[in-house]
Amino acid sequence: MTDSPKTHSEIRSETRLGPDFKADSGTGSGTANGSITPVILCGGAGTRLWPLSRRAFPKQFAPLIGEGNLFQQAATRMSGPGWDAPVIVTAHAFRFIAAQHLAEIGCAPAALLLEPEARDTAPALLAAALHIARDRPEALILAAPADHRIADDAAFQATIATARPLAEAGHIVTIGIPPDRPETGYGYLRLGEAPHTVAAFVEKPDAARAAQMLSHGGYLWNAGLFLMRAQTLIAAFETHAPHILPPVRAALAGAAPDLDFLRLAPAPWAEVEATSIDYAVMEKAKGLRVVPHGGDWSDLGGWDAVARAAPADADGVVHTGPVTAMDCTDSLLRAEAPGQRLVGLGLRDVVAVAMPDAVLVADRARLGDLGDVVGALRVAGAPQADAFPRSHRPWGWFETLHRGPGVHVKRIHVDPGGVLSLQSHRHRAEHWVVVQGTARVTIADRTHRLEANQSIYVPQNARHRLENAGDAPMELIEVQTGAYLEEDDITRHEDVYARGPDD
Amino acid sequence: MTDSPKTHSEIRSETRLGPDFKADSGTGSGTANGSITPVILCGGAGTRLWPLSRRAFPKQFAPLIGEGNLFQQAATRMSGPGWDAPVIVTAHAFRFIAAQHLAEIGCAPAALLLEPEARDTAPALLAAALHIARDRPEALILAAPADHRIADDAAFQATIATARPLAEAGHIVTIGIPPDRPETGYGYLRLGEAPHTVAAFVEKPDAARAAQMLSHGGYLWNAGLFLMRAQTLIAAFETHAPHILPPVRAALAGAAPDLDFLRLAPAPWAEVEATSIDYAVMEKAKGLRVVPHGGDWSDLGGWDAVARAAPADADGVVHTGPVTAMDCTDSLLRAEAPGQRLVGLGLRDVVAVAMPDAVLVADRARLGDLGDVVGALRVAGAPQADAFPRSHRPWGWFETLHRGPGVHVKRIHVDPGGVLSLQSHRHRAEHWVVVQGTARVTIADRTHRLEANQSIYVPQNARHRLENAGDAPMELIEVQTGAYLEEDDITRHEDVYARGPDD
Repeated sequence: MTDSPKTHSEIRSETRLGPDFKADSGTGSGTANGSITPVILCGGAGTRLWPLSRRAFPKQFAPLIGEGNLFQQAATRMSGPGWDAPVIVTAHAFRFIAAQHLAEIGCAPAALLLEPEARDTAPALLAAALHIARDRPEALILAAPADHRIADDAAFQATIATARPLAEAGHIVTIGIPPDRPETGYGYLRLGEAPHTVAAFVEKPDAARAAQMLSHGGYLWNAGLFLMRAQTLIAAFETHAPHILPPVRAALAGAAPDLDFLRLAPAPWAEVEATSIDYAVMEKAKGLRVVPHGGDWSDLGGWDAVARAAPADADGVVHTGPVTAMDCTDSLLRAEAPGQRLVGLGLRDVVAVAMPDAVLVADRARLGDLGDVVGALRVAGAPQADAFPRSHRPWGWFETLHRGPGVHVKRIHVDPGGVLSLQSHRHRAEHWVVVQGTARVTIADRTHRLEANQSIYVPQNARHRLENAGDAPMELIEVQTGAYLEEDDITRHEDVYARGPDD
Repeated sequence: MTDSPKTHSEIRSETRLGPDFKADSGTGSGTANGSITPVILCGGAGTRLWPLSRRAFPKQFAPLIGEGNLFQQAATRMSGPGWDAPVIVTAHAFRFIAAQHLAEIGCAPAALLLEPEARDTAPALLAAALHIARDRPEALILAAPADHRIADDAAFQATIATARPLAEAGHIVTIGIPPDRPETGYGYLRLGEAPHTVAAFVEKPDAARAAQMLSHGGYLWNAGLFLMRAQTLIAAFETHAPHILPPVRAALAGAAPDLDFLRLAPAPWAEVEATSIDYAVMEKAKGLRVVPHGGDWSDLGGWDAVARAAPADADGVVHTGPVTAMDCTDSLLRAEAPGQRLVGLGLRDVVAVAMPDAVLVADRARLGDLGDVVGALRVAGAPQADAFPRSHRPWGWFETLHRGPGVHVKRIHVDPGGVLSLQSHRHRAEHWVVVQGTARVTIADRTHRLEANQSIYVPQNARHRLENAGDAPMELIEVQTGAYLEEDDITRHEDVYARGPDD
């Protein structure tokens, strides 16, 4: 007999606090009491950082710059004294990745709201505000994208401290970034005459207008960071975008608890207009206030932004991973796998990103067309367009080491407490060799305990389950054999993570 | 009990003739009778086609252009009516690769001479000439590098037909290439006034001199292809480089038969001057004749030469493998692994070569410095400088799929008849899962027969042997576990291939 499987909550609560996560972070139980509830939006997926960021594993979860990833950096930045536990809004497809990444840094969110489908920032933020306002309408919330880079924590905390009294006074406060270049990729805020007032929103400008604003002064970039009371934001929706409220309220009222997640009701959510918070509310709102941010900031909106945000050598070359560059200038060279050496020779204004399954080499001036390239890959049926070599699951992850006729070799990593579904396969047999940790393997009605260097055979059609039976990560090599070796040859008989057939 | 292992000869003789190899090729037994014995020099290793060509697996063996590889193309080109079986001269380290590649195309060489260490072309060619002249001093020999590209077979045969009567008349005949650009990387031949005569050798010129020769006319590139009688070449050595003869004769006299190979005696060979055939003999020889080659030719001496020799699209882009190029011009994009997508965006005059363990991105004008880059990789201790992801052995090959703490996963391919040594490992255990073909596995004194989807465990310290017991290739996945997982943890108790501890 096996032990009864642990719930996802139990698994997460066993994870120790990460060293970077601030120890007196709220636990989600508390009252507002002047502290701020972060609302972290991490449902987005783009193509401008391909191949590191893909639809199946977007940039906020990727090890792009600094320790951990941008999502973890955001959660860590908004923790500690003065911060409540965060409310996370993410896509259904990313729920286990988000939960795992929070667990890795010891962050217990107040809520994890799942969007049945993407509806841009306005509905996501409204859903979080409504959720928080049920108990705490006066709560201060900081709406923040999960995928921006802010390295200087002291400057960030100072910016928020400046914004706080304005928000407490009932204003929506936007954080503005002093521009250092004539950027055409962002919207701008024109400052008003009175301190902290906004005279106007300026849509993304052309190059001439951007240069004019930069030299004129009195403009800030709109960074998409907003501090306000929950009820202030809801009231702004009531005034400026009232049609969005009913379906979002209904999606929240009908939300289904799903393990630790709160899954917004799909039917009303499908009725919500997809629109940005800027367009729906901010550009029309009265009494908006702005606080300039005195530290570094980047949206890392593409490889060029990454090159600007990362430290470069004297020749302007940014390199990450096992890279050898000879006589290169103003280039970005990234090798993402430890065993893959990237060599640049005589390059100028080139971005090269190497991964085991995909390599990008681009003229830096042409990065704006990367989305078209990814589109072309999709049309060509290249799996690298959207799929990621490592597949994340609620119990850990796996990656393909080799595929050939009749064989598929995987590396499978199960987190402590992780439990795969009770499953069977019609077309394949599996050979498992444990290489690290302790596995508990159930085949038919027998249970086996395997340590490193032990192996077991799972015959075709046999009901089986794999669990990590130890306190450390368990890793095994799986060799699948058979005529048909795709992921969809899986029949789930029981699953502690309540997954559907597609995930 | 196992069957007695097959010898390497038996293994090779079971290989069917490749479709490209001309069926009435000589078998090495025959008399000269006017036919030509190819002497194929394939001991070289350079850095100018890194990462595809590396010290452990140089360019003549790599799938660089066209069907098969350059070595196979050379052997195929010099086969059929009018050609004897070839004499191959190669490095000790490449002997199994060379033998396997010949077997793949059904070519049975007259001899495979192994150089204990590289001594440039003059000693290698002299050794082959002396070997042939023992029985057939009048034999016509065509000295040919293994790593040149000549796609137009009819033109090549016509060139040789023109050269033959001159060689039969006792001349050394060099094949010259009409230049189509002011190349500074080759030596030139200045034509004499009488037909087929050579007035002078011209060393590699500077750009101005090269342009002058191209516009003046009457110059050919020296392609390193020479046709003559064996005794003519030996006589030329006697006249112009007599000091090379005694140690090469001694190395040949003391040569040890080693399976199907003839290993030149290391002690005298170490005394031989390392020098090129041009410098030692050709530049000084009297009565040299030249025949211009009317077809295509390339030495594929670098990525730029490969780009010129391969078909390009309308924008001048040459691509090989899973490549997506958008708005690229005059570039070479190669993806060497089927599962690795290479994307080029907006590139001009760039060479990008992607392999799973190494990626090169270079300005096309800077390819001359590739050797320095490989040197820098060596200094940095990067294994990719010289090692190749697939390791060739006399019984087949293996490649690493994954390395991690305590685990090493390999894909092992054993040719029909292939037999690994009887071996044991002090520090590791091995799990084998057969995925294709039939294996015979001996562990201690028991022998097991395994088909696809069967597995077996090889404990630490157990004497074991793996064989392909079938008529088709056998492939298995090996999972090594243990604290020390390097190749040198191997004790060979018996080996049908007579290998030393280092190979």
